[in-house]
Amino acid sequence: MFKTRLYAPGPVDVPPQVLEATARPVVHHRTAAFKELFLRTRDKLAEVACVPGDDVLILAGSGTAGFEAGLLACIPRGAKIIGVNAGKFGERWTKLARHYGFEVAELTLPWGQAADPEAVRALLKSHPDAVAVMTTHSETSTGVLHDVEVIAKVVRETVPDALVLVDTVTSLGVAELRPKEWGLDGIFSGSQKGLMTPPGLAFAWLSERAWARTDDLHPTFYLDLRKERLQQRAGQTAYTPAVSLVAGLEVALSMLLDEGLRAVWHRRGGLNRAVLEGAGALGCKPYAERISPAVAALYAPEGVAAPDIVKGFGARGMRIAGGQDDAKGHLFRPSVMGYADRYDALVLVAALEEILLELGQPVTLGQGLAAALRVLG
Amino acid sequence: MFKTRLYAPGPVDVPPQVLEATARPVVHHRTAAFKELFLRTRDKLAEVACVPGDDVLILAGSGTAGFEAGLLACIPRGAKIIGVNAGKFGERWTKLARHYGFEVAELTLPWGQAADPEAVRALLKSHPDAVAVMTTHSETSTGVLHDVEVIAKVVRETVPDALVLVDTVTSLGVAELRPKEWGLDGIFSGSQKGLMTPPGLAFAWLSERAWARTDDLHPTFYLDLRKERLQQRAGQTAYTPAVSLVAGLEVALSMLLDEGLRAVWHRRGGLNRAVLEGAGALGCKPYAERISPAVAALYAPEGVAAPDIVKGFGARGMRIAGGQDDAKGHLFRPSVMGYADRYDALVLVAALEEILLELGQPVTLGQGLAAALRVLG
Repeated sequence: MFKTRLYAPGPVDVPPQVLEATARPVVHHRTAAFKELFLRTRDKLAEVACVPGDDVLILAGSGTAGFEAGLLACIPRGAKIIGVNAGKFGERWTKLARHYGFEVAELTLPWGQAADPEAVRALLKSHPDAVAVMTTHSETSTGVLHDVEVIAKVVRETVPDALVLVDTVTSLGVAELRPKEWGLDGIFSGSQKGLMTPPGLAFAWLSERAWARTDDLHPTFYLDLRKERLQQRAGQTAYTPAVSLVAGLEVALSMLLDEGLRAVWHRRGGLNRAVLEGAGALGCKPYAERISPAVAALYAPEGVAAPDIVKGFGARGMRIAGGQDDAKGHLFRPSVMGYADRYDALVLVAALEEILLELGQPVTLGQGLAAALRVLG
Repeated sequence: MFKTRLYAPGPVDVPPQVLEATARPVVHHRTAAFKELFLRTRDKLAEVACVPGDDVLILAGSGTAGFEAGLLACIPRGAKIIGVNAGKFGERWTKLARHYGFEVAELTLPWGQAADPEAVRALLKSHPDAVAVMTTHSETSTGVLHDVEVIAKVVRETVPDALVLVDTVTSLGVAELRPKEWGLDGIFSGSQKGLMTPPGLAFAWLSERAWARTDDLHPTFYLDLRKERLQQRAGQTAYTPAVSLVAGLEVALSMLLDEGLRAVWHRRGGLNRAVLEGAGALGCKPYAERISPAVAALYAPEGVAAPDIVKGFGARGMRIAGGQDDAKGHLFRPSVMGYADRYDALVLVAALEEILLELGQPVTLGQGLAAALRVLG
């Protein structure tokens, strides 16, 4: 018998307190009770996003809906955008932009590499008419954390008016993220990652200068951040909100704020490092040039097929992610970014030891755990 | 941040599927729907208790209620009973019997010792008028598993008519238990231990010869097994049943039967051994002479106060048990008898390593884990 454990880089295991809240009776959204819950949730979300007092809009949708809403809200159709494409999600945003007829100049990088801010600068120099730069912060497909702070600085220096729109799906609540200090113009995320809530909610924040550009643009009917801002400031939403998920989110945000945002970043970074070090001691090299705390992207050892490792976890009740696209054969990606503590990091490494042994690798039980324990202290 | 983990020898962590079932809308107990659920649950419970087809009565109450119901059902007031008192629970049953005016001859053993069947024989020989022997199977306070199979055999050989009434609170679903093959006359248990259900249900089974003695006796008004048997065979109960707990129990029983009873016993025994061995490598000696799979009763190392170890687990979100009565200072008792797999055994040992280090013990991180892993294989 194995318990069921969700160690994928989203959706993540949700705390029982959050599940309990999502199971509460559905409140009608046109009531004082919902309004009060929603406003309280918005306040907490803005704190967790390091933009206290700002509007972080909550949409019924996935992270992709959030990015789409943000892009269409502040970039005029047909404009030129720089897209950092260093993995599955960077690629998705260039596809999204092209779908709407934007002109995209891509900075395409081999998977696993972090975007070099100087390469962004060079691309911007040859495209001085670009009105925005899109990038992921934590690229979930490769486990890379792009240095969006420096990238934003470079954008400001090179094409000062260009907006910096950032996919923070797996960095919000996981990695240090300071949208205003860093000069970002948009962050977009979802509920099922660092915020430890079931999937179904998207989040969007825009800078003041991004909001200033939202006039006369053509968002979709549903994903319209201006409409939403107007409503959400009053504790309402433009369309029916996912009230149960909001109730769960409120509890999850309280847990994160009670722990303290810095403590949360520190914990999640440390746990992910412990998994990486533990796996490293078992012959699994890290895939990412610059490590995101959201996921431990790992090469399978020489001669081992990564899908067999993923299957091995599955046979133990643990859901991790494999590699996507070309990385399918050699990459596997466990994550402890959800409701996880140091013992979850140890559980992952203990399971990996067993799986590699089963697959005929020359490892000893306890070898990875020892390395993980050195990191956990 | 630490998750909350219940590693006490009851109540135990309950599987989410079971919690989900207990949260279903309350069904009225005088309906066909409840009758169907109740009969199905009874069938499964009888299978888990290794008495398929027999009546295992389900009461709204704790394990103590179950034992009280069983004792009063088949032993005439004022009769003489042999009580094996080798821990907190053995002691409880002698107190219960004396409360009702039974004459109790006690076999009192130092905590941690297993009842020697020959000592039971000797006591019976000097009390040939005893009508029953009461004993615990798994004595939760000391972590001892008494050999009730051999004890029952000795009782049959010495005073053939004496009934053997067994507290199986922490052995049902945990240790091998074969009431009919072993010639037991009553087993009494609760929902919050091996059956991984929230507390609130008691279970009682009697042998045919015990049932044959239930006429003209004086049970309490509420705890009346004859009344219950009559009702429960028809899918009803004498008094209002705890319907939500029954719904949860049905799911938990299905999980145990799906895994297979032998596999469950094997798993739980192995996990408990892994905890004992892991702790042993860290200088914690086992307390029990004959190990129950329900709980790892462990001595704190020389110079360490056991309550500090219990507190250390608490500081990590883990609830274990300390020692009771005189054992408070030196005994601590983690358990993996609930919804727990091999990774829970490792988590317990990893936490114990950290706690002992904090308390200044000369242990190395990984030292206990290595020993636990050798047991887990």
